Amino acid sequence: MSVSTQGSVDIAATGAADRVFNFSAGPAVLPVQVLEEVQREMVCLPGAGASLMELSHRGKVFVDIVESAVEDIRSLLRVPETHEVLFVQGGATLQFSMIPANLLRSQDAAAAYLITGSWGKKALTEARKEGEVDVVYDASSTNFNHAPGAGDFEVKEDAAYAYYCCNETIQGVQFQSEPQVPSDVPLVCDASSDLFSRPLDISKYGLIYACAQKNAGPAGATVVIIRKDLIDRGSDSLPGYLLYKNHANAGSMWNTPATFPIYVMGKVLKWIQSNFGDLESMRDHNEAKAKLLYDVLDANPDFYVGHADENARSRMNVTFNLPSDDQLQAFIGSAADAGLANLKGHRSVGGVRASVYNAMPIEGVEKLAQFMTDFASR
Amino acid sequence: MSVSTQGSVDIAATGAADRVFNFSAGPAVLPVQVLEEVQREMVCLPGAGASLMELSHRGKVFVDIVESAVEDIRSLLRVPETHEVLFVQGGATLQFSMIPANLLRSQDAAAAYLITGSWGKKALTEARKEGEVDVVYDASSTNFNHAPGAGDFEVKEDAAYAYYCCNETIQGVQFQSEPQVPSDVPLVCDASSDLFSRPLDISKYGLIYACAQKNAGPAGATVVIIRKDLIDRGSDSLPGYLLYKNHANAGSMWNTPATFPIYVMGKVLKWIQSNFGDLESMRDHNEAKAKLLYDVLDANPDFYVGHADENARSRMNVTFNLPSDDQLQAFIGSAADAGLANLKGHRSVGGVRASVYNAMPIEGVEKLAQFMTDFASR
Repeated sequence: MSVSTQGSVDIAATGAADRVFNFSAGPAVLPVQVLEEVQREMVCLPGAGASLMELSHRGKVFVDIVESAVEDIRSLLRVPETHEVLFVQGGATLQFSMIPANLLRSQDAAAAYLITGSWGKKALTEARKEGEVDVVYDASSTNFNHAPGAGDFEVKEDAAYAYYCCNETIQGVQFQSEPQVPSDVPLVCDASSDLFSRPLDISKYGLIYACAQKNAGPAGATVVIIRKDLIDRGSDSLPGYLLYKNHANAGSMWNTPATFPIYVMGKVLKWIQSNFGDLESMRDHNEAKAKLLYDVLDANPDFYVGHADENARSRMNVTFNLPSDDQLQAFIGSAADAGLANLKGHRSVGGVRASVYNAMPIEGVEKLAQFMTDFASR
Repeated sequence: MSVSTQGSVDIAATGAADRVFNFSAGPAVLPVQVLEEVQREMVCLPGAGASLMELSHRGKVFVDIVESAVEDIRSLLRVPETHEVLFVQGGATLQFSMIPANLLRSQDAAAAYLITGSWGKKALTEARKEGEVDVVYDASSTNFNHAPGAGDFEVKEDAAYAYYCCNETIQGVQFQSEPQVPSDVPLVCDASSDLFSRPLDISKYGLIYACAQKNAGPAGATVVIIRKDLIDRGSDSLPGYLLYKNHANAGSMWNTPATFPIYVMGKVLKWIQSNFGDLESMRDHNEAKAKLLYDVLDANPDFYVGHADENARSRMNVTFNLPSDDQLQAFIGSAADAGLANLKGHRSVGGVRASVYNAMPIEGVEKLAQFMTDFASR
């Protein structure tokens, strides 16, 4: 499908037809419609006379893009007026430090951490540098294969905040609902790999955040939704970039933001709205996709061994192993030959990981499910 | 020049022909050849089966891109083996804090700061949070219109480091050569708006850095070149993302980097190499462009008033004012009508600012110079 244009841009030389189904855990699959839109606008954004990448972040074109992205986030997640929406650089990793630097360092109390996987552990390491931390739940003894139930942990009434990661990408373990914490304790959540994949009651959170590169866009932009009364907890002695209030007071323009990742994220949000309408419908779609894969695991219990307990199964990252390493290698190799790419599990867990974020089409999941069934029967 | 392809991507609807000459100070003009290459690869990077934005940062495709970008930076700037090249998020602003957090907090000595404009001032504010600072030069009394000469300041023998910004984008003031500091004092430089625009002797620097969005790519990627013996100065008690050694030990993959901005930066570096060969030739090109504009200022001294002293004139940002605000508004408006865009000076200085970074074609500068001459004679 190679077509040359007058501008000598042989744009379709490698296009949609050359794409594989990409199960990468992140950076991850994006909607092809979004990529095509970005492609059309790459050399010159209509009306702007330049590529988006070349425009000042303080110009009207980009300011409109940011404001529209914030509005769409507010609308999709029904963010209440009590909360602010920010864009920050540095990924989830910088949030691991910004959260305790702002919300713990200045407090007399300890923060409560629930550890259900690798990302929670990393967050914990950074929090301990900033203040006192109580680990109120730790699933490491069972190799992080489950999430706690209601009575499995306790958060003190005076905790500075309670922290958890609602979907552990590496282990494929997802909380089915928010953990219960005392009403005065701000709930803080790393939703990097499932924000925008399902509806959430944002009013329950003091702070919830996500790096973009799972369900919402390319790496480089991180969304932070923070309750307004928590914004000022950070001390002015912190490095300026780490202070939430600097970002909030400047409408996420305290310094030059990662303009292009935010622009792409804006298009992904519009894609969710126009293709699914709301996050209830997005969730139903994602649950249907994940079910296709878990059904194959359940139908072949002697061949596929799922990592996560049944009631903690992630709808985003389906993790499982095969009886032998030879079979695992054969599985990943044959799948790649069949256009089912990037299925290798994280090195710390091994096995297979199929990430089926928002933008993974159901056709890709159906093809993988069929491949898994065929492979198990061979 | 609208051409539809089979894939229904009406790619050339807004293409090179619709572009204006964009004098934005940053994010800023990029080479159109780079934009067209990115455009071609947007939906599917050849051989990868996906867009670059969708690929894991730990996969071979992206690792090759990072390694190649580092190699090209090393080659263009002739970075010696004593120095490491890192990519970090957070822009120059995060460097304002990372530098003193790593290089000052653990030291008994003060850091020396030379302040020649707005960016140096911002860096100073952050440094003061981390330790003792001596301001050894401050050009604020003349509204930051010049850079110091050799005898104009003194840096103590035991300073933790000496810091300066070699090109103040807002004021259009550029150091013509490195400031002289005692040989044991690491020289630290914010080269955000002129790295890659001219050759530099990197061996003179303890640390030199630049955000990408002036001469090297889109916002979101920051290049840090640091002498290896300085990498370990930072204490492990720092927030992990702020520790240079974490980024260095992980080859800039301590966490997910801003993959797309780095990929575009890689293409810009290749563009410099294939169009100019080396930074001596790039400098000559940039000096020729800036001269076109300064010649118009010098030919019309009663009409155009340059902001910078003649021996501190920036080859990147040409700043000047007009006799009246009415004339200034007319100038900016008529220029925009003529396809010469984003010439408004920064709000803190006013007037006109023409940023003529690497990717600004000489045709754009010639057109602006002609416009300026015509406007002055009207």
